[in-house]
Amino acid sequence: MDVSSRIERALSEAVAFAEIPGCPPRLAAAMRYAVFPRGARVRPRLCHSVAAACGEDHPAATEAAGAALELLHCASLVHDDLPCFDAAETRRGRPSVHKAFGEPLAVLTGDALIVLAFQTLARIQGRPERLTALTLTIAQSVGVPSGIVAGQAWECEAAVPLSDYQRAKTGALFVGATQAGALTAGFDPEPWAALGASIGEAYQVADDLRDVLCDVEELGKPIGQDARRLRPNAAAQLGVGGAKARLRELVDAAVKSIPDCPGAEELRVLIKAQTMLFFPKQLALVAA
Amino acid sequence: MDVSSRIERALSEAVAFAEIPGCPPRLAAAMRYAVFPRGARVRPRLCHSVAAACGEDHPAATEAAGAALELLHCASLVHDDLPCFDAAETRRGRPSVHKAFGEPLAVLTGDALIVLAFQTLARIQGRPERLTALTLTIAQSVGVPSGIVAGQAWECEAAVPLSDYQRAKTGALFVGATQAGALTAGFDPEPWAALGASIGEAYQVADDLRDVLCDVEELGKPIGQDARRLRPNAAAQLGVGGAKARLRELVDAAVKSIPDCPGAEELRVLIKAQTMLFFPKQLALVAA
Repeated sequence: MDVSSRIERALSEAVAFAEIPGCPPRLAAAMRYAVFPRGARVRPRLCHSVAAACGEDHPAATEAAGAALELLHCASLVHDDLPCFDAAETRRGRPSVHKAFGEPLAVLTGDALIVLAFQTLARIQGRPERLTALTLTIAQSVGVPSGIVAGQAWECEAAVPLSDYQRAKTGALFVGATQAGALTAGFDPEPWAALGASIGEAYQVADDLRDVLCDVEELGKPIGQDARRLRPNAAAQLGVGGAKARLRELVDAAVKSIPDCPGAEELRVLIKAQTMLFFPKQLALVAA
Repeated sequence: MDVSSRIERALSEAVAFAEIPGCPPRLAAAMRYAVFPRGARVRPRLCHSVAAACGEDHPAATEAAGAALELLHCASLVHDDLPCFDAAETRRGRPSVHKAFGEPLAVLTGDALIVLAFQTLARIQGRPERLTALTLTIAQSVGVPSGIVAGQAWECEAAVPLSDYQRAKTGALFVGATQAGALTAGFDPEPWAALGASIGEAYQVADDLRDVLCDVEELGKPIGQDARRLRPNAAAQLGVGGAKARLRELVDAAVKSIPDCPGAEELRVLIKAQTMLFFPKQLALVAA
């Protein structure tokens, strides 16, 4: 089974835990709506790629880790779209969860997806000695002091240390993805942090460029949000040309940072291909 | 060290993970504000009581489980108080989190507390074979299909099965507390579900009575919320006299349900004392 299918199957099996009698049906529907149809699945894909490069020996753990990362990412999107944050009416080209299901269910959907991520990890069978590190690593990429929730919370502070903000808001979950991939294969996660950090920053720069350059139709969500909300944006700070150059640097840094492992060469090729995937069409060439 | 001090220390140590450089300081402050000063700590107290009755052999696990349960309870209060749910301006006699810190930080505080609960569990040292069951049990009491988040989500459905709603909304976390207490001591959690369910329902009936009978000053939060929000309320359904009788039955059922264990006799006394604690002053006598 290819990686995409494994990712989708793991997510569908996770969400199915809500789709049984005794669970409020609209909550279950909102959870599936928040997770499907698929986005680019950048984070689980990265987790799978690293696990494969490390000689994946526990596929169920990789799949659970990938699903947990994506569930947490989806939870953050649902909450970030709420009226008190971005007030985004669309996401992936259709109504955001709070527009489709109402604000109360959007709050609860995010909460339930966070819990579901940890349930998914705890259900991994076998090799229990890896589970604690895996759970702590993924939790750290989401919670306090410097996960994506903390990143979002920097927007509520008067003084924002830009590097802390960007590292937490986007980078943390990418670091979680590379480290989780290494952990599920029994590898030390520390050397894998740099790869996640570089890809995370590249993704943020690409997202900043999209926010400035794209039209609503391609992006599937409102554009110009950063300027409207006075959020830092790399394309605004460096100019479009500067941001493109920074993007190229970051992809190079990512590829160079890959630690020694059985599948290092193949991973370098994969990382280049994957970083292409999340760039908007009109920017795809710059990363080549 | 007495149980109260152990509970407070474990919670303070958990929240301290947010209070380090690199974490947005207002998020850290809102998290501490949501957890301290202490409420009755009914759920961790119950978890500690059951663990003690089972011959507690891993105190750090009991403390972590108690802290996780209370962090999840506090998270649910912060989100339930949001404008899109109860729009409660006060909690424990002072401004609710969204009034004190703003709505965005209230959403993020709830999210961060949920993640912190699982971080706290994953940090337990020793006896890793118990960790998975403990994590799944506590997660189940919060998430889908029938934890407290699902309970809250029943309020967003057109047709609400009353027993599913009440069991999930309040009961689930009490069942989680008794089962977690048994698990931290290496006991089978299943026989302990009935105790949690009875105490949970008793707590809900007491809360319903408070909502009808108390004044704002004693309750520390708005009264008459159930009628205003068309939520089921035992005192409204059974009358105050009927609700008091139901309360007495439930406390009896709780005491009788206690499974065979080394400290069963002491636990019966404790449960009677603890159920007294969460009754409002003018109702305390009915449980005697």
